Amino acid sequence: MTKLFNDPARFTEDMLVGFLDANSRYVSGVAGGVVRAHRTRPGKVAVVIGGGSGHYPAFCGTVGPGFADGAVVGNIFTSPSAEEAASVARAAHSDAGVLLTTGNYAGDVMNFGLAVTQLRSEGIDAHYFAVTDDIASAEPGQEAKRRGIAGDFTVFKCASAAAEEGLDLAGVVRVAEAANAATRTLGVAFDGCTLPGADHPLFTVPVGHMGLGLGIHGEPGVADEAMPTAAELAATLVGGVLGDRPDAREKRIAVILNGLGRTKYEELFVVWGDVSRLLRERGYTVVEPEVGELVTSLDMAGCSLTVMWLDEELERYWTAPTDTPAYRKGAAQPAAEGELRHPDGSESSTTAIDLASLADDAGRTGGRLASRALDAMAAMLVDAEDELGRIDAVAGDGDHGRGMVKGSVAARDAAATAVSAGAGQGSVLTAAGKAWAAKAGGTSGVLWGALLTALGARLGDTGHPPGGDIAAGMRDGYDALIRLGGAAPGDKTMLDALLPFVEELEQRVTDSQDWHEAWRVAADISAEAAHATADLRPKVGRARPLAERSLGTPDAGATSLARCAQTVADCLTLAAQGDN
Amino acid sequence: MTKLFNDPARFTEDMLVGFLDANSRYVSGVAGGVVRAHRTRPGKVAVVIGGGSGHYPAFCGTVGPGFADGAVVGNIFTSPSAEEAASVARAAHSDAGVLLTTGNYAGDVMNFGLAVTQLRSEGIDAHYFAVTDDIASAEPGQEAKRRGIAGDFTVFKCASAAAEEGLDLAGVVRVAEAANAATRTLGVAFDGCTLPGADHPLFTVPVGHMGLGLGIHGEPGVADEAMPTAAELAATLVGGVLGDRPDAREKRIAVILNGLGRTKYEELFVVWGDVSRLLRERGYTVVEPEVGELVTSLDMAGCSLTVMWLDEELERYWTAPTDTPAYRKGAAQPAAEGELRHPDGSESSTTAIDLASLADDAGRTGGRLASRALDAMAAMLVDAEDELGRIDAVAGDGDHGRGMVKGSVAARDAAATAVSAGAGQGSVLTAAGKAWAAKAGGTSGVLWGALLTALGARLGDTGHPPGGDIAAGMRDGYDALIRLGGAAPGDKTMLDALLPFVEELEQRVTDSQDWHEAWRVAADISAEAAHATADLRPKVGRARPLAERSLGTPDAGATSLARCAQTVADCLTLAAQGDN
Repeated sequence: MTKLFNDPARFTEDMLVGFLDANSRYVSGVAGGVVRAHRTRPGKVAVVIGGGSGHYPAFCGTVGPGFADGAVVGNIFTSPSAEEAASVARAAHSDAGVLLTTGNYAGDVMNFGLAVTQLRSEGIDAHYFAVTDDIASAEPGQEAKRRGIAGDFTVFKCASAAAEEGLDLAGVVRVAEAANAATRTLGVAFDGCTLPGADHPLFTVPVGHMGLGLGIHGEPGVADEAMPTAAELAATLVGGVLGDRPDAREKRIAVILNGLGRTKYEELFVVWGDVSRLLRERGYTVVEPEVGELVTSLDMAGCSLTVMWLDEELERYWTAPTDTPAYRKGAAQPAAEGELRHPDGSESSTTAIDLASLADDAGRTGGRLASRALDAMAAMLVDAEDELGRIDAVAGDGDHGRGMVKGSVAARDAAATAVSAGAGQGSVLTAAGKAWAAKAGGTSGVLWGALLTALGARLGDTGHPPGGDIAAGMRDGYDALIRLGGAAPGDKTMLDALLPFVEELEQRVTDSQDWHEAWRVAADISAEAAHATADLRPKVGRARPLAERSLGTPDAGATSLARCAQTVADCLTLAAQGDN
Repeated sequence: MTKLFNDPARFTEDMLVGFLDANSRYVSGVAGGVVRAHRTRPGKVAVVIGGGSGHYPAFCGTVGPGFADGAVVGNIFTSPSAEEAASVARAAHSDAGVLLTTGNYAGDVMNFGLAVTQLRSEGIDAHYFAVTDDIASAEPGQEAKRRGIAGDFTVFKCASAAAEEGLDLAGVVRVAEAANAATRTLGVAFDGCTLPGADHPLFTVPVGHMGLGLGIHGEPGVADEAMPTAAELAATLVGGVLGDRPDAREKRIAVILNGLGRTKYEELFVVWGDVSRLLRERGYTVVEPEVGELVTSLDMAGCSLTVMWLDEELERYWTAPTDTPAYRKGAAQPAAEGELRHPDGSESSTTAIDLASLADDAGRTGGRLASRALDAMAAMLVDAEDELGRIDAVAGDGDHGRGMVKGSVAARDAAATAVSAGAGQGSVLTAAGKAWAAKAGGTSGVLWGALLTALGARLGDTGHPPGGDIAAGMRDGYDALIRLGGAAPGDKTMLDALLPFVEELEQRVTDSQDWHEAWRVAADISAEAAHATADLRPKVGRARPLAERSLGTPDAGATSLARCAQTVADCLTLAAQGDN
């Protein structure tokens, strides 16, 4: 288990401090992650990789000549925010555009996608690409739904080498697509990993068993099997990976036998002996294989086999030199790099707005109420963090509680600051939403940020908003989630708790009920709906989950949405009592 | 725990097959280990590193330009044999001599020392050096008694870079000595590792605790402490390491924060942030630090901090380029290497001796009896392997059972082959002794090999040896162990069981007792003596062990010696019954 930390809540920040210090020859820190110590040279496309941390050397360990120009660093197993992705991309960008690329996870797709939109609005030619190499996460024919695991490495490496060679953004995107189309991975896990500060593993595998296809965040696999010998495992992995691309004609392949953290080099070499023999027997020539830890999952026990079928171009990129903190090959050319960065500590300052001038007394009263509600939500979520993490771990990666705490605490602080500046309810909620999205990362961070921001925009900073505006603001938030999330009610997401809430609230304020009372009833209905997600079909976006793992447990996002609604109802009741 | 293997008894061999296959660009296999894929260039000193395996990338992962010329690969946590060390050194040697270097462990010191003697007898200028960086394993002033741990890496790196630069053997030895004198390491462990095929860890650390100074094979540390925060651990490690060399004047230092296997990169970076700050606060400049896994212990949880104080010469060697399977730095010059090896599979053949011509019928009868006794010993040791490992794990590294099985099985097979060839008792025992030493590795392998060889030399291949020769042969064996082992009776080693055995045997045959009966009584006395080692002072060679771990448990080597003596007694009884 993860044993060394100071404050678990600051684990990623502390990790980055140490990483940057130890690797100052290679990398510089920027808001949201790291970039190469030398600026990207003019004319070169920047490649920005990323995702949640906990996978070292993925992703920040492979920033340097021949590999990535920057890495966005999210919290453990949590997507970084759109703001963080855009920040790193801006710092890495020279003048030839930027490819942002991650494994295919909902949070990353959403946040990096939003970052691309933002960057384009700033005149930066940006493109996003998601790696989909994990054959256990969706059937053949459904490749676009697959997750990205150790194949991230082959795709990132080839796209980066193409950028280094001087291809334009369209060319780099084409190489990333080609590498991804030629890459397949199958992974297994023997035991779970433990998040910093947690007292139990994120998931477990029964003793003497192996989870076939289990994801790098503990996402359910395709089968639990008896623990095999090294030779049996090699046969399973080779047969699985090759079988997923039966029509492949290339006979030269790049291969990675990747350790997840606790399965050590000696064991990997034992397995590799059998893997190599089997590949040779099938007529393959293995080109510069990698046997070791390239995409880990903290101290998870397990490994994966990645094959990338090589044409001449991909082989050139796979074997190209590179020089990064954790991965070096051949003689990379640091001299071809741009000028050394001179971090001067200056940050682009945002224009200060006089929040007080936008609000009236009624609006400021509403701002204080919003701040108080966010304060109560954050306190509730801090208490519920472990429980929400456990619920999430059933069908997800167990990071929901952590993300909700990070987001709500940041929102609470931003709201308090806005209140101090004299802001009204609209500005308080907008500031809180922005902070939530920026600090929480992950899928829920984006969605909660959007929900608060939409509500704030509807309410404005003046007057006591009527119940109809409250209901309309929540409906705006719901609509924003539908646009962003790609999910629908019934998909076992927070929408399943939000939609009944909004509908009940709308109905009751339409019937002229006081919105405080309407909120209470709607919150209770929301809680029932969240509970009922336990009986819905498996969570959307989790391909081929084990039925027993994903049914019978309520959705974590729906649960926290309903609890927040109830916490706000309590807060409204207390505020009303205080008014009496 | 170690989960992936085929036959645990062939783990190291299987590991080497996979390692060599994956890294054929860098290394070639030779008997006993690996050498660079290119021959050592004329005029360059060869540096051969090694020791037991289970520490990857130490040791075979750092063979290549700028680093070692060869690595001797023992079984997991077990010294390779002298024959294996000499074999790798011969293959690595060009024409300028060879430095053999390991961490300071009794088995390595003995086997590599014997290899140096052998190499010199062949006209190869050879020197041995043992690294002693572990400050927890002996008090200041007793530096020569200290074990070698992650400081192996700094010493091997500097000596190798010096050889690459063109220094002669004396110069390379001087650099190794200087690097070792300037290097200090302090390690901690949070949880034990598990040997391949074992169903329980080699040792454990109480939950919530940390073993300070615990060795990389689980050797006892100096204290059990409550689990610290990352910052507290950093303070402990920095304070400990710097405090061991209070008069050091150099302010530039090479630093390694080394993970033992399960303590992952993210955690190490969190600790590194605090380590780096503390070092800076003390006025140090850290030169190209390494934060990661360089000297592991399978999947042991823990880490260590190594500091090497740098003068100008050591800094040059520390920062010199290198290109090896697991460690690459700067632009190493493979072009400066010698010609590529073309392994042709040919092995130097040993001259076949007509064993049958040396023996008479009585000697061949004795040979069959010796073979039968070795067969029984091997069978007994296979059954006792786990138990002996557990006993050894209390004060040692738990490899005793494995080593005894490897050695006795090899001895049994060699004896059977010699019997088939018509050999007498002397040649059978000599062949068995050589096979035991060559295949078992470790300290016990050398000693058992010497014991059998000495007995065989005394008995010869003709006639029924009288009891006096049996006793004298065992005394010869005892004397050989004293010469080789550097231990004395009372040091809690196999000598404590062997000396009472020899004395009793001598006394009884002097009193004209039949030697079969004398052996039985001597064996029983030996068993009592082995049992009594539990009450002796802590095992010698294990510096500052925790008293409760090393007292109260009999010595593993003494236990197996006594059991073998009893097994032989049973065999003699059965043989006598068969004669009736």
